[in-house]
Amino acid sequence: MLRVAGGITAPRGFRAAGVASGVKRSGRSDLSVVVSSTPCVAAGVFTTNRVQAAPVTLGAERLRASATTVRGILTVSGVANALTGPEGIEDNRRLLAAAEVELGLPEGSLLPACTGVIGPRLPVDRIVTALPQLKAALEAAGDGAERAAHAILTTDTRAKVASVKARLADGTVVRVGGMAKGSGMIAPRMGPMHATTLAYLTTDAKIRPAALARVLAHETESTFNMVSVDGDTSTNDTIYVLANGEAGGGFADDDPAFAEGVHAVLESLARQVARDGEGATKLLTVKVTGARNLDDARAAARAVVGSTLVKAALFGADPNVGRIACALGYSGARLDPDRMDVSILRPRQSVPLIVRGRPAPALENGGGNRIRDLLRQLDEVPLEVRLHEGRASATAWGCDLSYAYVQINAAYRT
Amino acid sequence: MLRVAGGITAPRGFRAAGVASGVKRSGRSDLSVVVSSTPCVAAGVFTTNRVQAAPVTLGAERLRASATTVRGILTVSGVANALTGPEGIEDNRRLLAAAEVELGLPEGSLLPACTGVIGPRLPVDRIVTALPQLKAALEAAGDGAERAAHAILTTDTRAKVASVKARLADGTVVRVGGMAKGSGMIAPRMGPMHATTLAYLTTDAKIRPAALARVLAHETESTFNMVSVDGDTSTNDTIYVLANGEAGGGFADDDPAFAEGVHAVLESLARQVARDGEGATKLLTVKVTGARNLDDARAAARAVVGSTLVKAALFGADPNVGRIACALGYSGARLDPDRMDVSILRPRQSVPLIVRGRPAPALENGGGNRIRDLLRQLDEVPLEVRLHEGRASATAWGCDLSYAYVQINAAYRT
Repeated sequence: MLRVAGGITAPRGFRAAGVASGVKRSGRSDLSVVVSSTPCVAAGVFTTNRVQAAPVTLGAERLRASATTVRGILTVSGVANALTGPEGIEDNRRLLAAAEVELGLPEGSLLPACTGVIGPRLPVDRIVTALPQLKAALEAAGDGAERAAHAILTTDTRAKVASVKARLADGTVVRVGGMAKGSGMIAPRMGPMHATTLAYLTTDAKIRPAALARVLAHETESTFNMVSVDGDTSTNDTIYVLANGEAGGGFADDDPAFAEGVHAVLESLARQVARDGEGATKLLTVKVTGARNLDDARAAARAVVGSTLVKAALFGADPNVGRIACALGYSGARLDPDRMDVSILRPRQSVPLIVRGRPAPALENGGGNRIRDLLRQLDEVPLEVRLHEGRASATAWGCDLSYAYVQINAAYRT
Repeated sequence: MLRVAGGITAPRGFRAAGVASGVKRSGRSDLSVVVSSTPCVAAGVFTTNRVQAAPVTLGAERLRASATTVRGILTVSGVANALTGPEGIEDNRRLLAAAEVELGLPEGSLLPACTGVIGPRLPVDRIVTALPQLKAALEAAGDGAERAAHAILTTDTRAKVASVKARLADGTVVRVGGMAKGSGMIAPRMGPMHATTLAYLTTDAKIRPAALARVLAHETESTFNMVSVDGDTSTNDTIYVLANGEAGGGFADDDPAFAEGVHAVLESLARQVARDGEGATKLLTVKVTGARNLDDARAAARAVVGSTLVKAALFGADPNVGRIACALGYSGARLDPDRMDVSILRPRQSVPLIVRGRPAPALENGGGNRIRDLLRQLDEVPLEVRLHEGRASATAWGCDLSYAYVQINAAYRT
């Protein structure tokens, strides 16, 4: 598997575009489309929040109706179209219908997504007037993938893209492309038919619907579902994957190289979401090893990246090992407090923080200052937790808690 | 039931004192004792964190050994005595033994508690040299209750005390006094024999050990276990109650007036802890009614006070109803998103925020600004959530998320 350029349009047959339709008062781009030149097998995972945005309800409905005739994804950023009831679903349906006509696509072939402020109705008429512009952008050659990736952003500070190619067992070379958004209200817990993180994957692999759904659900568990910025699971979280089969060859259904490609793109996007968490200055990666089972490993890793106190300490470059131990202790994972080890993973030699349940000697006698200096320098802080309880491991991604997070979220709508 | 003065020493037979022993470099008081002139029936609830501080292990052990010969509680603030292994327990045992000798109390009759930085050992020798001073303070008349309440504080900005008197069915008048600390690392989940919130109750009621344990466990569920400042469940959380029986009369075991008195003191202390959350500018109270059952009601109320995004919006006086709906949606409580109502409780007329699952009309056309002004003025924001699913209700307490929270926790140890 190799990283390649191209993002969401790296696989054959996909185009993308992003324009400003006026949903965002700032005038930034807010309408994004990804289109395949041929029908796709598609799958999606959605938020498990009981309050589901209209596009989540509608997207799940369209996938149930037909997961083999999907042509693309239309995303509006700036409004979430949540808390809008049946009218919100009707609004979104009307927008998709107009876009399908404008772009010459079959009825019902576009999947919806929205992200932004919860509460307001979707300004359908305003968006519809921008559809000709979207069509023109899609037909123009050039940087459509980049523009599409920008048009789905809200409080994000950068676009998130990834793309790889993988060689299947039968020699077919397939590409997997992806883009994502997500900065706040990030603690995805996505079920099979159920992030506001949005992530879209495209691939030119040939695959059957059930296999695609299974690969997406499985790889989401160890990637997006292991990210937390603020612990708030959104009403709008959605991951879609579209497979148009244009690479030819045999079915990728059970090919590990395909699943690895999907995993690589999802993991890259998930890390980018965590790194760009609202106000974040550092990416926090927590790898738990030696857990009793996978659930314990995931719970322990999630608790550390999710701890408000660990996050604030990280912002202050404070090696506050007590807070890490505290989070492990309340995670629910089975552990012996007198056996666990925690260290900062470093290329040559890891820096111990907790050794057999006690603060590491390295923290004493001014050693804490050296670790503080190290933490200050690191853009990514990779912690390893060894529980010595079993053989399961898991990794979670998060970020620090800064003044900027508070600023962004105390005044998001003003 | 009537509120009375006196705090932890309101019931007959209790004295208290607080002094500076040098654990805190700032020179603020850090050693606190509460003592009964006669043996007490005692009960405790402790953190469910798997990483338990030494005083938690030791305190639970002493209550198991004898819950009828307790004479008092000795608290050190500044160090948590957690992540200190068997040596930490031995340190605490040695401190208690020295204090029992100094204060003329039977061996094993003091209960321990600690709060502060996790990791460092307890400076037993330094504390022991301050014991004569503690004894003198205990013997002096005056403001011992207030000094004891101050000496257990860490990042708290104010002492937390409460006391009531209640008339039992047989006419006996009993008093219940209390004090607490807690500002950060606050999300108590306490089990029967298992905060860092510390709360102590004293009473002169006569009661049997099992009944006292049952009343404490039951009333903790609806009070301290419904508080969240930052979602981090501490290694040191402890509530103790001491009953010396000096009010005479019959046993209070099943007397509802006694349980109500305990509840009133715990609820007052729990609210004070939430209001004094690290960096908090506002108390957030969320009352959920109409839930399917008590677990659902508690989960829904806890999710709203625990939401980082709701907390940040509250700091900004932003009536961001989407975040409230989002938190309710991921709480796990069963709800119909199109039926739920949310309002700000006001003395004359509640202010609707969500009506049957939609943003209230009051938020539109500049109405949002009036609500913003109201939120700015309120020191306590009381939200009511009506789920219309059943008849269960619950209340949770929390606070807003401010720049000061980040500041305090990015640099707590420096």
